[in-house]
Amino acid sequence: MTSEEKLRARIKELEDELSRRDRINVVRKKISEMSSEVVDSNPYSRLMALKRMGIVDNYEKIRDFTVAVVGVGGVGSVTAEMLTRCGIGKLILFDYDKVEMANMNRLFFQPHQAGLSKVEAAALTLTGINPDVVIATHNYNITTVDNFDHFIEQIRSGSLTNGPVDLVLSCVDNFEARMAINKACNELGQTWFESGVSENAVSGHIQLIVPGVSACFACAPPLVVASNIDERTLKKEGVCAASLPTTMGIVAGFLVQNTLKKLLGFGEVSWYLGYSALNDFFPLMQLRPNPSCDDSFCQKMQRDRPPPTPPPTPAPAATQPVLHEDNQWGICVVDEESGDAAEGQVLAEGVRTAYSMPAGDGASGDASVEDTDASVEELMKALKQL
Amino acid sequence: MTSEEKLRARIKELEDELSRRDRINVVRKKISEMSSEVVDSNPYSRLMALKRMGIVDNYEKIRDFTVAVVGVGGVGSVTAEMLTRCGIGKLILFDYDKVEMANMNRLFFQPHQAGLSKVEAAALTLTGINPDVVIATHNYNITTVDNFDHFIEQIRSGSLTNGPVDLVLSCVDNFEARMAINKACNELGQTWFESGVSENAVSGHIQLIVPGVSACFACAPPLVVASNIDERTLKKEGVCAASLPTTMGIVAGFLVQNTLKKLLGFGEVSWYLGYSALNDFFPLMQLRPNPSCDDSFCQKMQRDRPPPTPPPTPAPAATQPVLHEDNQWGICVVDEESGDAAEGQVLAEGVRTAYSMPAGDGASGDASVEDTDASVEELMKALKQL
Repeated sequence: MTSEEKLRARIKELEDELSRRDRINVVRKKISEMSSEVVDSNPYSRLMALKRMGIVDNYEKIRDFTVAVVGVGGVGSVTAEMLTRCGIGKLILFDYDKVEMANMNRLFFQPHQAGLSKVEAAALTLTGINPDVVIATHNYNITTVDNFDHFIEQIRSGSLTNGPVDLVLSCVDNFEARMAINKACNELGQTWFESGVSENAVSGHIQLIVPGVSACFACAPPLVVASNIDERTLKKEGVCAASLPTTMGIVAGFLVQNTLKKLLGFGEVSWYLGYSALNDFFPLMQLRPNPSCDDSFCQKMQRDRPPPTPPPTPAPAATQPVLHEDNQWGICVVDEESGDAAEGQVLAEGVRTAYSMPAGDGASGDASVEDTDASVEELMKALKQL
Repeated sequence: MTSEEKLRARIKELEDELSRRDRINVVRKKISEMSSEVVDSNPYSRLMALKRMGIVDNYEKIRDFTVAVVGVGGVGSVTAEMLTRCGIGKLILFDYDKVEMANMNRLFFQPHQAGLSKVEAAALTLTGINPDVVIATHNYNITTVDNFDHFIEQIRSGSLTNGPVDLVLSCVDNFEARMAINKACNELGQTWFESGVSENAVSGHIQLIVPGVSACFACAPPLVVASNIDERTLKKEGVCAASLPTTMGIVAGFLVQNTLKKLLGFGEVSWYLGYSALNDFFPLMQLRPNPSCDDSFCQKMQRDRPPPTPPPTPAPAATQPVLHEDNQWGICVVDEESGDAAEGQVLAEGVRTAYSMPAGDGASGDASVEDTDASVEELMKALKQL
């Protein structure tokens, strides 16, 4: 072999290796129609089997739906992956963070993605998993004025048919972003799910919000403040919230499971489902809208809609505490903490229990109460006795 | 540039490209000690924060533990990923299946892995996510005689210190494999968790089994058979079980959350936690061992252990139905189905409700009952009223 032949052989070898790697990373071809065929090569066989099992009437309809996922962190990324694997029509992802090594204790992102924007990294992974899903990404903070206008436009016209999206899933980690989503959805009359995980990582919840029908996020604020103290000033320097892949995966699972039930019309959609990891307790409840809600669009939706009696809530009565039935607003305490959490918290004057406020004593108070005549402690005690 | 120089330049170019790709896929360096430092580059900061939040006393102890995961499918793969991201010391994975495109409706595996063995593909992905975790894989069916002996030896001496593993997690999808795990764990006095998802994809459960203390899998069989009919002969040709990434992710989340509670000693570990997706119902219960269990090691463990009163079960009384307190064995009905499922099933003579038997009418009966004086229907009705 001449020297030139050797060099050419080496080039061939390197090119083959690169081509082999390209083949590995190539996404599967798009599939024009969902098939029920039971063969190992069909990625939809186990989903279409839901029809044969009598669970869903028309599974393939999932391809018509568009879901916006706001926040692609520990809950949002898994939410997007589940919907992608279920074959949702279109996903619209919003986030403005970058992937960090500190995110590796939750599912989805991988170390080699550190430094990429979360929406970009997510879109790449999701397209590799299921190229049939249309994925749009927006790498910005929805709470600034310009971005908020753009965000609201995506919700209004981002579907596959340029109409409103079918559902908005809030997977954000702060109050400001939740209020922005709430504002947008009230203005548009857009149904959405709120979700959250406590800063001590051992509780979480999902909540369905139908403007005018159920309480909006401003109706029954799991609020930081009555006196407009900025949430950020309450956060202590150097405080790092705990998180677990378990709790976040479970909350994402609840969120997508209820999304599937809502979109495909099977089972009963939960209005509010909580999760307390320490004792495997799962409160179910419902919150009615507040007639004097601060959000004027919420008030308008309440007036425009038929009488504010939400559809019957799901699940066995025993696990569905509704306190203070005679309470004007029908607002319930939300107890996600076990044991003696939320006790011993010292809050500044005018500050109520926070949504995601770090608690120095190891307790993270997710409890919310508005205008009831009992103390938080009394209500939590009553709830526990149920 | 001479022809040879051109060829060498091309080689350099190709080598650089390959090297760049290797860098992308390179796993992060091992980290000798878990740090609490709150910096973006620390993959353990959010886990170590569980200490500051008062949830866990000694999180870094997780590195001492070894967990065996039997079955690396829809539940087992996510279970292994969660434990890997939590920084478990060692994982031992057992499976003998290959990755198929038909698995893509569940989390974890990706299309480019189709054709690889599940344990091999899982080990590659998990090591990329967290190289600090020691991962051992066994690509075989644990139910054959030789493999069973090897399996039992891994459970007995597979830990980081060559002692017994700390926990076995059963994530298998059939009765035979569950009975093999049960036999091994009874013989060794090994604590384990059983898990399962119904064939209609909308219910699941986890169950803690402590030999001699709680019912083993043979004590209160969610059995296929009294008359020894082979499970496989009951499965209809061409039947394809339904599955969802949501249900399987949630069950994996419950499994790992209770594993963390058990290993790290926080919260209350559930003996049995069920999940009914259609109505977000989560039954908690406990099953006592059966003094006349078919498994002789189970009987021996019962005699050798202190009085068979399991530790207090977790969670609020209202969600923890214990039926027939005067029942000799304290065995409860397990109701994972909602509505009128499990009714109308037609079973062959001598065949009881199956663990994972496909139900032709769309109902998958996961109910189990042994030696009570009420019918399954009566017990299920009673359970629902609680």
